[in-house]
Amino acid sequence: MCQLLGMNCNTPTDICFSFSGFRIRGGGSDMHKDGWGIAFFEGKGCRSFIDVQQAADSPIADMVREYPIRSTNVISHIRKATQGRVALENTHPFQRELWGRHWVFAHNGDLQHFKPQLVGPYQPVGDTDSERAFCFLLHHLRHEFASAPTPERMFPVLRELTARIAAHGEFNFLLSNGDFLFAHRASKLSYIVRKAPFATAHLKDEDLSIDFSEVAGSDDCVAVVATQPLTDNEVWTDFEDRTLNLFVDGQLAMSGSTANPARN
Amino acid sequence: MCQLLGMNCNTPTDICFSFSGFRIRGGGSDMHKDGWGIAFFEGKGCRSFIDVQQAADSPIADMVREYPIRSTNVISHIRKATQGRVALENTHPFQRELWGRHWVFAHNGDLQHFKPQLVGPYQPVGDTDSERAFCFLLHHLRHEFASAPTPERMFPVLRELTARIAAHGEFNFLLSNGDFLFAHRASKLSYIVRKAPFATAHLKDEDLSIDFSEVAGSDDCVAVVATQPLTDNEVWTDFEDRTLNLFVDGQLAMSGSTANPARN
Repeated sequence: MCQLLGMNCNTPTDICFSFSGFRIRGGGSDMHKDGWGIAFFEGKGCRSFIDVQQAADSPIADMVREYPIRSTNVISHIRKATQGRVALENTHPFQRELWGRHWVFAHNGDLQHFKPQLVGPYQPVGDTDSERAFCFLLHHLRHEFASAPTPERMFPVLRELTARIAAHGEFNFLLSNGDFLFAHRASKLSYIVRKAPFATAHLKDEDLSIDFSEVAGSDDCVAVVATQPLTDNEVWTDFEDRTLNLFVDGQLAMSGSTANPARN
Repeated sequence: MCQLLGMNCNTPTDICFSFSGFRIRGGGSDMHKDGWGIAFFEGKGCRSFIDVQQAADSPIADMVREYPIRSTNVISHIRKATQGRVALENTHPFQRELWGRHWVFAHNGDLQHFKPQLVGPYQPVGDTDSERAFCFLLHHLRHEFASAPTPERMFPVLRELTARIAAHGEFNFLLSNGDFLFAHRASKLSYIVRKAPFATAHLKDEDLSIDFSEVAGSDDCVAVVATQPLTDNEVWTDFEDRTLNLFVDGQLAMSGSTANPARN
């Protein structure tokens, strides 16, 4: 299974510490060697770095770890190919424009027999179930809303679309437009919110610590979401299975079941 | 004015040598300090690196120069802001999906009063004339062709759309989907085709030489397009003003006037 990492903050923050541990899962401490990627939002702008080399020894990952890009929303992914060969066009995160904003998406899981008829402007470039799911989401969101809705208005629609896709298999995903972060847990996804009083965190995958009280501002609020907790001395919270979660300004703002969205 | 660099090849080739000289124009040998970007196609996959720092001392540019990404189509751009502030969302090259392929676009020039009504799926994220022009092109191409045409069928349509945009001002641009490269010269754009017998090339912007006979295969064919010639010991060819040019497999395949497209 692939690995997801997301960050949503109330102030631009660099992800170097979390990424240091996360990248090791790409061919180092874990067996996910089929490429990796990371997308950073800076205002409305977005830049992503993707590579088919394993993250543990990619020169691009070296650069990302050393170059503190400060961002309010980040999505990263380490791939273990299930559907679609190892190729750049199959490497997450995927990116498309909708309502004049960039949207970024990464998926962990495996969708069986998910081959929707995709007419309209969002067509997959590669051949993964994940990119098909992303195109399906954008197609229906665009159909539902002529212009950008608030995340609160978008929530029930996305929850219902998620439930439809999740009927095909494991569908953990992260989705962001740079203003907020949606995180869906099918069966694996945890999070932590760091805010004052800040403490020292220690990575699980390598012997590296950071004292956030020395680097964070007193009003900073940073949510980190990952397939598995990244640190071993902090309390991470598991989302409930089959829930869609919305993070705004570093805090969990909404949460709702996708097991039976009509009832929630 | 901004600087453009493009490459189209019949075999995946790294652009490290040309990029070494080109990047110096971003804040080093020339005054273009408002960001830069480069997009590489590898098969159908595309990755781009963009930065608001000047190219001459960007850590991302260091990585790009050192990491030989082998690509058949590359588009790079160094920005001197005319319209739109210095921001990531205004940094070229721009990227969108059309007909299930990534398209990449970079522009050099300044379009006055070009504010078309853009209804449909291609909406600018930033506020440059350039991204508006790109969205305008994709919108009309999508309207004209339900699925991907050959570049030969696309050529006359693109030529006419180019002429419409060029009525608003200087419109040098590069456009690629990874299979071929379109290059429009309004008033500044040169090219060179390198093929056997290969020789040594020497950069204009720094004292660096490469002997292509040592690194290129005998069948390699590589076209390089730039706002100004990058080397000082090779013969570069100026395109004619107001011509649209198509490169396929490292060779100039088509050329036609955009001054009066109906007559050519």
